[in-house]
Amino acid sequence: MGMKIGIIGLGLIGGSLAIDLKQGQNHTVLGVSRRAETCQQAIARGIVDEASDDLSLMGQADVIFLCTPLGVMEATVQQLIPHLTANTILTDVGSVKAPVVEAIAPLWPNFVGGHPMAGTADNGLDAALSNLFVNRAYVLTPTEATPALAVQTVEAIAQSLGAKIYHCHPEEHDRAVAWISHLPVMVSGSLIAACLSESDQKVIKLAQQFASSGFRDTSRVGGGNPELGLMMARYNQAAVLRSLHSYRQQLDQVIHWVEQSDWCSLETQLRHNQQARPDFTD
Amino acid sequence: MGMKIGIIGLGLIGGSLAIDLKQGQNHTVLGVSRRAETCQQAIARGIVDEASDDLSLMGQADVIFLCTPLGVMEATVQQLIPHLTANTILTDVGSVKAPVVEAIAPLWPNFVGGHPMAGTADNGLDAALSNLFVNRAYVLTPTEATPALAVQTVEAIAQSLGAKIYHCHPEEHDRAVAWISHLPVMVSGSLIAACLSESDQKVIKLAQQFASSGFRDTSRVGGGNPELGLMMARYNQAAVLRSLHSYRQQLDQVIHWVEQSDWCSLETQLRHNQQARPDFTD
Repeated sequence: MGMKIGIIGLGLIGGSLAIDLKQGQNHTVLGVSRRAETCQQAIARGIVDEASDDLSLMGQADVIFLCTPLGVMEATVQQLIPHLTANTILTDVGSVKAPVVEAIAPLWPNFVGGHPMAGTADNGLDAALSNLFVNRAYVLTPTEATPALAVQTVEAIAQSLGAKIYHCHPEEHDRAVAWISHLPVMVSGSLIAACLSESDQKVIKLAQQFASSGFRDTSRVGGGNPELGLMMARYNQAAVLRSLHSYRQQLDQVIHWVEQSDWCSLETQLRHNQQARPDFTD
Repeated sequence: MGMKIGIIGLGLIGGSLAIDLKQGQNHTVLGVSRRAETCQQAIARGIVDEASDDLSLMGQADVIFLCTPLGVMEATVQQLIPHLTANTILTDVGSVKAPVVEAIAPLWPNFVGGHPMAGTADNGLDAALSNLFVNRAYVLTPTEATPALAVQTVEAIAQSLGAKIYHCHPEEHDRAVAWISHLPVMVSGSLIAACLSESDQKVIKLAQQFASSGFRDTSRVGGGNPELGLMMARYNQAAVLRSLHSYRQQLDQVIHWVEQSDWCSLETQLRHNQQARPDFTD
């Protein structure tokens, strides 16, 4: 049984959701983008059934996915509300959950926070792909006040994308992603910045020539899209700071061991890291 | 014109050198390993022409590659010297250069420090491969006192492996590899250690479930062979500490910006990192 599904923001995530829900799941997909060109492209490529730059199109939708940048989500919901009927279900795809849930749940009780943990190095509708969510985590962050039917409906849609569903509190989500997604960006970016701080130009030049896969992998997320890194720090500020402070403690510990030539403690730590990593990567 | 080339230590690097020099370059390759089993295996696989657990075999060699762990290199050279004639050329493949050059050059003037920057995740003779050095950096660290003929001879052999040759001072090498190889291991290991410091077991569990390619890449070298990380810190202690202190300054700067909500400075830094990374990875 197809539903009418609205998607606000036709970028990588919104566009990829539209592709899977229209072509794979036989729903009617209605898209909203601020840019008329993006609307035309989405219709021309058959990604959506209807598209508009006017939020009133969402009045027909049973379920609406908010796929805008985090910074405009609350304002978008405020403009959207006049067009909704009371049983319209709202969900979002933002990569930080506590500030989104705190801002939107009071405006629209029938809201379920969500975070499909998928992406590519590219963005925009051009980068949208089918099956982007297959086998990827899709986190739902309902609160005690979230209506069960809304949660079940969003979960069923996420499941139909082939994603692995997780439920947790918004704050737990934000702390977990601070560790495995946001902290790595800061750690990795600081590695590049530290190398650039070398004052001996001959040594920098040699470092650039010698760098291979180890440096490439460790510096990858730190050399990525600056807007993304900024967004993480800005909207997940408390959890990112908490992780950064713990990280600095660990780093100070390593510096202390190397300064003291305490090879035994350093080796124990390196061994512990080696043993623990597969719990995160297997 | 084939030479007689000695290789002491038949592990990944020594074994791979032997394969290329015997099969590809038509040299006579003589191998020494402490373990009789390794000697037998090297002969059985056709990796060397002769093998022995006795350093006297090296008396015939024109050029000898020291491929032992850093910790036993000096003692090995002391035992080796009685077997050599004055024009025997000695070189090594150690990943740190200043302590090796300082220890060995006074014992044997005809010595050229070297570092072929190649490797795999495996080690030992079983892991040895042909063409391991093709297009990889091969760094030579002669001093003012190193005889020109020794440098030319080692360079010609390194070139015949298909490697890209670089020359620099031992200290410059050690500072450059501290930035792009040793610091990344400490930075990446501390990321794993920091995640494990999370006291909320629910959050750790979620972090493990949510971790994907960003965490995998950033944590890879930190979750690698502990002996390798220990060796870097131990033998390149001064340069590693120098890099660690610069890194901590960069990290403190990031923490300060996030604490102060100074998004403008953070964005400038992230943008700078994005622009600079290709100089190390392209």
